[in-house]
Amino acid sequence: MSAPVTDTTALRAAGFDPAKPEDAIAAVAARVSRWGRWGADDVLGSLNLLTAAKRLEGAACVRRGVAFSLSQPFDAEGPQRGWRRRTNPVHTMLDTGREALDGEFPHGLGGADDVIAMPLQCSTQWDGLGHIFDHGRAWNGRAAADVVTSAGDRVTGIETAAAHLAGRGVLLDVGRVLGDERGELPDAYPITADDLEATHAAHGVAVGEGDLVCVRTGQYARTRREGWGGYAGGPAPGLSFTTADWLHDTGIAAVATDTWGVEVRPNEFDDAFQPLHQIAIPHLGLFLGEMWDLDALADDCAADHIHDFFLTAAPLRITGAVGSPVNPIAVK
Amino acid sequence: MSAPVTDTTALRAAGFDPAKPEDAIAAVAARVSRWGRWGADDVLGSLNLLTAAKRLEGAACVRRGVAFSLSQPFDAEGPQRGWRRRTNPVHTMLDTGREALDGEFPHGLGGADDVIAMPLQCSTQWDGLGHIFDHGRAWNGRAAADVVTSAGDRVTGIETAAAHLAGRGVLLDVGRVLGDERGELPDAYPITADDLEATHAAHGVAVGEGDLVCVRTGQYARTRREGWGGYAGGPAPGLSFTTADWLHDTGIAAVATDTWGVEVRPNEFDDAFQPLHQIAIPHLGLFLGEMWDLDALADDCAADHIHDFFLTAAPLRITGAVGSPVNPIAVK
Amino acid sequence: MSAPVTDTTALRAAGFDPAKPEDAIAAVAARVSRWGRWGADDVLGSLNLLTAAKRLEGAACVRRGVAFSLSQPFDAEGPQRGWRRRTNPVHTMLDTGREALDGEFPHGLGGADDVIAMPLQCSTQWDGLGHIFDHGRAWNGRAAADVVTSAGDRVTGIETAAAHLAGRGVLLDVGRVLGDERGELPDAYPITADDLEATHAAHGVAVGEGDLVCVRTGQYARTRREGWGGYAGGPAPGLSFTTADWLHDTGIAAVATDTWGVEVRPNEFDDAFQPLHQIAIPHLGLFLGEMWDLDALADDCAADHIHDFFLTAAPLRITGAVGSPVNPIAVK
Amino acid sequence: MSAPVTDTTALRAAGFDPAKPEDAIAAVAARVSRWGRWGADDVLGSLNLLTAAKRLEGAACVRRGVAFSLSQPFDAEGPQRGWRRRTNPVHTMLDTGREALDGEFPHGLGGADDVIAMPLQCSTQWDGLGHIFDHGRAWNGRAAADVVTSAGDRVTGIETAAAHLAGRGVLLDVGRVLGDERGELPDAYPITADDLEATHAAHGVAVGEGDLVCVRTGQYARTRREGWGGYAGGPAPGLSFTTADWLHDTGIAAVATDTWGVEVRPNEFDDAFQPLHQIAIPHLGLFLGEMWDLDALADDCAADHIHDFFLTAAPLRITGAVGSPVNPIAVK
Repeated sequence: MSAPVTDTTALRAAGFDPAKPEDAIAAVAARVSRWGRWGADDVLGSLNLLTAAKRLEGAACVRRGVAFSLSQPFDAEGPQRGWRRRTNPVHTMLDTGREALDGEFPHGLGGADDVIAMPLQCSTQWDGLGHIFDHGRAWNGRAAADVVTSAGDRVTGIETAAAHLAGRGVLLDVGRVLGDERGELPDAYPITADDLEATHAAHGVAVGEGDLVCVRTGQYARTRREGWGGYAGGPAPGLSFTTADWLHDTGIAAVATDTWGVEVRPNEFDDAFQPLHQIAIPHLGLFLGEMWDLDALADDCAADHIHDFFLTAAPLRITGAVGSPVNPIAVK
Repeated sequence: MSAPVTDTTALRAAGFDPAKPEDAIAAVAARVSRWGRWGADDVLGSLNLLTAAKRLEGAACVRRGVAFSLSQPFDAEGPQRGWRRRTNPVHTMLDTGREALDGEFPHGLGGADDVIAMPLQCSTQWDGLGHIFDHGRAWNGRAAADVVTSAGDRVTGIETAAAHLAGRGVLLDVGRVLGDERGELPDAYPITADDLEATHAAHGVAVGEGDLVCVRTGQYARTRREGWGGYAGGPAPGLSFTTADWLHDTGIAAVATDTWGVEVRPNEFDDAFQPLHQIAIPHLGLFLGEMWDLDALADDCAADHIHDFFLTAAPLRITGAVGSPVNPIAVK
Repeated sequence: MSAPVTDTTALRAAGFDPAKPEDAIAAVAARVSRWGRWGADDVLGSLNLLTAAKRLEGAACVRRGVAFSLSQPFDAEGPQRGWRRRTNPVHTMLDTGREALDGEFPHGLGGADDVIAMPLQCSTQWDGLGHIFDHGRAWNGRAAADVVTSAGDRVTGIETAAAHLAGRGVLLDVGRVLGDERGELPDAYPITADDLEATHAAHGVAVGEGDLVCVRTGQYARTRREGWGGYAGGPAPGLSFTTADWLHDTGIAAVATDTWGVEVRPNEFDDAFQPLHQIAIPHLGLFLGEMWDLDALADDCAADHIHDFFLTAAPLRITGAVGSPVNPIAVK
Repeated sequence: MSAPVTDTTALRAAGFDPAKPEDAIAAVAARVSRWGRWGADDVLGSLNLLTAAKRLEGAACVRRGVAFSLSQPFDAEGPQRGWRRRTNPVHTMLDTGREALDGEFPHGLGGADDVIAMPLQCSTQWDGLGHIFDHGRAWNGRAAADVVTSAGDRVTGIETAAAHLAGRGVLLDVGRVLGDERGELPDAYPITADDLEATHAAHGVAVGEGDLVCVRTGQYARTRREGWGGYAGGPAPGLSFTTADWLHDTGIAAVATDTWGVEVRPNEFDDAFQPLHQIAIPHLGLFLGEMWDLDALADDCAADHIHDFFLTAAPLRITGAVGSPVNPIAVK
């Protein structure tokens, strides 16, 4: 099977040269960067746009009381293959039901306990603001070397966002609107701003400032059917680099996809690695959600034609973490 | 400093002999056990009581759009001291901002990544239904040895509850109503059903079927001030064994406290270890939340006299886990 | 590339039916089992054969004072692919030289520290006596369920062997004697007792009671050249099931190979998994060494025609472990 | 119990001011530093002094063939208390004997497997050359920031020493020669060069270039009897800062003690942290062994009056590690 080739039409149409990612990144950063917008001490980035009013709006989306977990499983069957020391989670038991009658505890009590060792990026997760840097600069223009040391992210650790990621969620099911009969986009498909606009128009849902936007490509449905194979980080549909302006102009608070890396893979430039991250995290201060399972939610939205909901996607409060596993809960 | 002694008045008044925990557990289990109530295949236990209607009721509690994280930090400063191989979480970096300019990635991209190794019970957490057994029996009467093996909980793994723990939350600030001028109960104070009733009456809030009840003792506030010292598992205020009937009769879906182990410590019986767990988890099918930080929420509730809220406390979807770290989010 | 097929000639010649591994195992166990030989309380198995006299004999093999590490690397490039939750080791830094000048310590001191998470079987290792069972029986006939619980191996934990694995080592370079021009046997090649005898005859070295025998197939040399690919546990040359008698009759104290699993892979029976382990560990009480790097030592032995040496292969003293990573040191 | 006070007589006698550790370190480094001695590319440091001839000499020390493990246990009962994220090792099972009859494998095979998460410095260990820096300089004068990054020690990783740590071992049982009736030195006792000389004179054993020297203080015997209590890193007997010249002048290849940190604790300067490390590792290129169990070996040496032996102390071949757990084996 030959590797899919990513279409660069949108990239070129936007005036970028696939051979020059560094130039493109610099140009886009110059017009969208939010450094200083919320003061020099800011640690929240685009989460500042997720206001109490927005949470009220989100709570008003709860119409039937039905809840959906948007998390993929955390287990040995995940997509990690050891790249950059990222393994699938290793969950082991300290005690089990097999020891329940060994009499270690009084009055017939038995217990089971467990531990886990995992990369914080192993499955459904948030990228925090200390995860990606642009030429040594982290969110708000800080020197990355000062922010994230071996002790962790001392400024924008994920704990600073612990209470914030609850609000109005919007599903943009691009796979279902623009994909094949199964509702899936092919690998290497770059989702453009036009695609995103066409999708929310088709859904009849508005996207606005402070929203938590979930973009479904359908790749996870395909993966679930066919297995991860040699993943992680292989070809996938995902956001085109050219959506940087859309991410900025809409004023959304965060964006999540059902793919490993949010962006189209391979990336649209000749020699590039996740160039949209380089805009989104350090310049927009945008939380990126990866490897979410949007399928059950998408089925429900397709059935009732309602694509917004109350979304709580709380990262674990790990001091100094640059990302976090998460079990996002959508309530409709 | 002499160790605090737990008052057994409530225990004796309820007709239990402090020397005979096994008899007491058997007697209470006989009258409150919910085995079979939701069929032989049930994996949700009391979460069955958290209905869509209850979630609508919970969403209606969102009045101002203010969000609170109820999670304690996950870091090396936590309460674990190695008991039963439970350590505080060990969070380490795979890459940091110090490496951002090493040129490992193209076009000026830099990144930081991290891993964690932790017991699932190390900090703010849910006990799942596979965590505790009564004489070798797990929730719904299943043989613990069949349910939880070295491969994990093959029946009631925490993933089965992934979408469920969102609904109406109620704070019972027993520390503030019945404790000292700081709003703290002393260690070894057994909270009785009368105390719980007095507290919600003082708050003017109702507790009903399907609610997620948060009981604040104030111990975490004290710990935050004074440090954990030699904890984990030392003296603490907490629920009396005699609250088993209250937990049953109210029909609440889950209960969480700001302490290490929900129950009063030392336990009320002469030689016992967490006897209320032995009722609550295997017999009631009740999720128990431990080491929650209820202080900021409690301050807000005390200020606006409103003690209910929308609570999302989503466990990580770790396949086969018997518990999970969690960052509970309360939205008022 | 089609999968290699394992030749069953030797198996059939020994009177075994490839369709009936269970019968073959029972027959061989009946004639070689050492249960009770060293008393009911024995925890050392064949290590009893490694006597002080043998260690003196080994020390006399030190002729030039040259030392060889027989360990493969412990890092992310290893052979593990997640099978049975076995990952490659994840080694991370707690502090680095990048933080050396941060001034955390007085008088200009800086320090780096590190942690590791790994399966004990991830790279060069010993299988301990609690690693494999035959129909629920562990070494010396003990009930496996009594020996190895979630708390670890409570009887034959690797710590019981901590001081023992030092003695006379013998290299049998079967790859060089019987393999191709590179000194490598093909995958799926079953090494027979005749092969082992032919090899030590060619070397002019004796193998006797209490020796630590290293069998080189050459597969690791091939892997080093070509990469692990989709390993772990794929095709490999290795010991034929029919060598069980040789392992018994020679009275060797332990055997190690340069392969993942000592035995030929695929195994020689139609539907089998490591049947020789089922004899060697529970019945012979034999320590099995896996994934050793014998190449540099083999080159030296080929050059000086001396194939014995002093071998120290000390497992880590991990209480209750059923195996251990090891860095074996051969001194010639 | 009041904390022991470290005697500074030896320090002052050597001309150092307890208030000025930085000056003392600079002065000693100036006269003992071995930077450049073995060329600019050297990664072995003092291990260069452990020659093949020395290994022959060591092998000649094997007189009775008796082996001793010098490792403390690796388990939850160790000395770590979380300082700098150092926990005791967490060893968990992937499968146990309790699952042996579950039929997961064919023909009656059952197996147990395990994993470990641990700091490389949690118990008996070697400090490698990338562990400690002097004003940002690592062994041989390299910039620490270039040597040890988040990817590990890229120059002097412990794997470079994998084959080297086997040779003549010498036990200096200072506890038995100079300590109390139990053979133990009190905490905070600074062992001087005179003490070391008096000890080997009393033993009638020579210490020379390339030796691996084991210094027994007796503290571990006390700890074994009384427990670790609040350790790690509390008071202990150990080498005085003033032994730096002895470590240099003797030309020993490595030194190990039965204590947490080799050096006397508290350190002899008013405000200091392991100042001898700052000389020994970056300037002498000396491997330091910590938390070794020398008691059984010491008993044997006291009985037969022979204090030298063949010592193999092979670090795990963890790529890029700055230290390693080890099970040192002494053969007499």
